[in-house]
Amino acid sequence: MTDCVFCRIVDGDEPAEQVYRDDWAIGIVPRNPVVPGHQIAIPQIHADDFTTSWLATSNAMRAAFQMARILDQPCNLITSKGHEATQSVFHLHVHLIPRVAGDGLALPWGPR
Amino acid sequence: MTDCVFCRIVDGDEPAEQVYRDDWAIGIVPRNPVVPGHQIAIPQIHADDFTTSWLATSNAMRAAFQMARILDQPCNLITSKGHEATQSVFHLHVHLIPRVAGDGLALPWGPR
Repeated sequence: MTDCVFCRIVDGDEPAEQVYRDDWAIGIVPRNPVVPGHQIAIPQIHADDFTTSWLATSNAMRAAFQMARILDQPCNLITSKGHEATQSVFHLHVHLIPRVAGDGLALPWGPR
Repeated sequence: MTDCVFCRIVDGDEPAEQVYRDDWAIGIVPRNPVVPGHQIAIPQIHADDFTTSWLATSNAMRAAFQMARILDQPCNLITSKGHEATQSVFHLHVHLIPRVAGDGLALPWGPR
């Protein structure tokens, strides 16, 4: 079995709360959501990060686009390349973070 | 002339420091970069945010992918929908933020 936790989730070998699936990507609830509604889009093919393969990145982003349209509220998409950028699982994933006024969540340019 | 500042930049009617261009998107340095190397990818067709049009989002994300490969260092991609999510220009744009250890930049899950 693969060492990659997101490949195992895609393959059904590791449990996850799945909120979206198409032929190229899945959407799950992360283990430690930062706010209610926090979801992550994961391409079904393995790629280490969003700079590895345009096919994998496009597949994950299209899923995140669909998930954001279903969410239908203010939100951020965030993806990371490298430890220094806070990446901890080295299978490309895109965070979808619902936002509400005064939620206090920070971005590099500070909270709203 | 359009009211949209990013449409004016795409059309060459407003100055900007352009760092990338393909047939579908441009990359510029924002007016207030949060760190050296901060860039934004902007689709040439107008879309209010990343949930408006998959074509516009895909075009911007592909440019951001190329810009990140040129940057070739740890980084985040961030895009926002809505005031509550810190969006201030309502023409879809994707931030590319270079990251280094200890830079102190925050994300919703805190600084690294």
